[in-house]
Amino acid sequence: MADRAQGPGPAGGRNRVTIRDVAGRAGVSVATVSRVLAGNYPTSAAARAKVLRAVKDLDYVIDGRARALAGTGPRTVAVIVMSVDSAFYATVAQGVEQEAAARGRLCMVCSHGGDEARELALVQMMREQRAEFVVLVGGAVENERYRARLTEYAHGLAAAGSRLVLCGRPAPGPDTPVLVVEYDNEAGAYAVVSHLLAAGHRDILYLGLLPGHTTVEPRIAGYRRALADHGLGPGAVRPAGRGLGRANGYAAMREILAECGGRPDFTAVFAGDDMVAAGAMAALREYGLSVPGDVSVVGYNNDFVAQDLNPPLTTVSIPAYELGREAVRLALAEEAADVPRGAAQSRHLLGTHIVLRQSVAPRR
Amino acid sequence: MADRAQGPGPAGGRNRVTIRDVAGRAGVSVATVSRVLAGNYPTSAAARAKVLRAVKDLDYVIDGRARALAGTGPRTVAVIVMSVDSAFYATVAQGVEQEAAARGRLCMVCSHGGDEARELALVQMMREQRAEFVVLVGGAVENERYRARLTEYAHGLAAAGSRLVLCGRPAPGPDTPVLVVEYDNEAGAYAVVSHLLAAGHRDILYLGLLPGHTTVEPRIAGYRRALADHGLGPGAVRPAGRGLGRANGYAAMREILAECGGRPDFTAVFAGDDMVAAGAMAALREYGLSVPGDVSVVGYNNDFVAQDLNPPLTTVSIPAYELGREAVRLALAEEAADVPRGAAQSRHLLGTHIVLRQSVAPRR
Repeated sequence: MADRAQGPGPAGGRNRVTIRDVAGRAGVSVATVSRVLAGNYPTSAAARAKVLRAVKDLDYVIDGRARALAGTGPRTVAVIVMSVDSAFYATVAQGVEQEAAARGRLCMVCSHGGDEARELALVQMMREQRAEFVVLVGGAVENERYRARLTEYAHGLAAAGSRLVLCGRPAPGPDTPVLVVEYDNEAGAYAVVSHLLAAGHRDILYLGLLPGHTTVEPRIAGYRRALADHGLGPGAVRPAGRGLGRANGYAAMREILAECGGRPDFTAVFAGDDMVAAGAMAALREYGLSVPGDVSVVGYNNDFVAQDLNPPLTTVSIPAYELGREAVRLALAEEAADVPRGAAQSRHLLGTHIVLRQSVAPRR
Repeated sequence: MADRAQGPGPAGGRNRVTIRDVAGRAGVSVATVSRVLAGNYPTSAAARAKVLRAVKDLDYVIDGRARALAGTGPRTVAVIVMSVDSAFYATVAQGVEQEAAARGRLCMVCSHGGDEARELALVQMMREQRAEFVVLVGGAVENERYRARLTEYAHGLAAAGSRLVLCGRPAPGPDTPVLVVEYDNEAGAYAVVSHLLAAGHRDILYLGLLPGHTTVEPRIAGYRRALADHGLGPGAVRPAGRGLGRANGYAAMREILAECGGRPDFTAVFAGDDMVAAGAMAALREYGLSVPGDVSVVGYNNDFVAQDLNPPLTTVSIPAYELGREAVRLALAEEAADVPRGAAQSRHLLGTHIVLRQSVAPRR
């Protein structure tokens, strides 16, 4: 009652209905009501209809802390991304959401737009809301400041009974208590560059530099290893571009083609991601160069767009959706096994594979 | 204190640090701390660094209810979508997030995957968390059940001091207390179909039926009106396909081309969205038909993919990002003007325009 008395806003007077009233009105058990409201499965359509009707009739507002104390009602899983409008982030978030839903959890996706203060505020909010676990998605530029921040998140969430889950990025340190679900970024790059080498290409540009970035560096490492394993010296390593994304890929390729007067001294491009490839291919077209006739292009991620690019893009498929689902499965498995939240980190690696389309031709 | 005493989990013992302790440690005001944690702007980089350092040093956990009572700390805005992996939903959510951040709010994006019970549970959760307002994004199939549900949401949120905002979908009824931000769906369809007619096309297929859907029906209405205004009888109206999205567009076009043995009796296709167009163009290619040589194709939305399709797609640009930003601006303007939360609805309409690319040719 204290909670309600103190509750701000006009709702103060409207929170008197309890989950028991709803159960009574619906003629079902309290557990059924909480399952229905939590989206827990299975619940019969009939029971669900009765509960939703009763909730509406009584204008029931779930009381968060009462719920937390009673242990009823939906548990929540949080996903924190840089932005929600990238295919990779959205697909991972979708995977988390779907698996969380199947396990009767609600899922919240928040983005920080690269602002540290907002990222911290979001993590704090999730601690305070007792999110079961908090999934940080995607790569980041690693430096001391970053490692310190992530280490604080991990310990802070563990102290609050929650767990930090890193999806598609490495742990900030060997002893940080995090659950890490990654994909084999370096091996995917090795495979797709090897495919270009097998087609006879020797002058292969890497497009999409992002120094210190945990996603980009392994891709460049795989590219370097493939070139070396095919007997090409360090001189064959040709990194270019500033950052990922279509705009960067387009601008970088325009610049390169302007410098060489539209006569490139490379026959293939390994783009840091599919959007870089899309931008680079648009720039090549503008200079009257054909893909793959004049220049072969490969990407990374197998975005929605890859299959519809002109030509359809040979790229590396990363298990974005599975990353999200695995993150939830593994985090809940830890809970079921009563692994202490502050426990040493556990790391899981998912595989990648090439998708062959029409953007690569044998070297002329 | 009662709040902390009752707080579940090991965090109970760690919540004693207050925002005043953080301010003291950082040597700044409490207001500055809450601005920094809220991501409120402007805060000097120096002040922010001090506060973040103090928060880490003291392992400060923001106390949600204390914050609410003190009126400090971040206010939250909620976005509820069907799924986070569609370009339209993601772009609108991004617009909400960016504008919310600029106004010092945190933004949570939740998806229900089309499950009514989950949608209700999410709305309940946002009520309970005192979200300033709740933005429902995108169209829906309208029926009595849907209208009743949305009306309940609107009144329930208003009663809790929050506000229902509909982004890209109409109000469920004339008296429902909602803020509606839409775009001119019908006019965009009229314009792009008129473009096909101006190119001499008379046999124009609409692809992507979704009966009763608030996004699709106005697009078909605009298509009908354009045909009628160009003196074509009802016989010229040729709706086909089941649903939006690439898979539906591909399957529907495959089916149509199979039936006519690859010799279509239409010269142009108005796709319900860009992904339908992408799927239809892939199917046309598989039948050796060229776009726009044999068949002209236009889409809707101007998705990320539209400019990179083969050929680049002529489509209708909808202000997805602006829809999100406007929703926040208008909702906060209402608050600033002390418009009662249960106030009669207000409706705002944003414009659409055609983007001409290479997927339309004059009729042979």
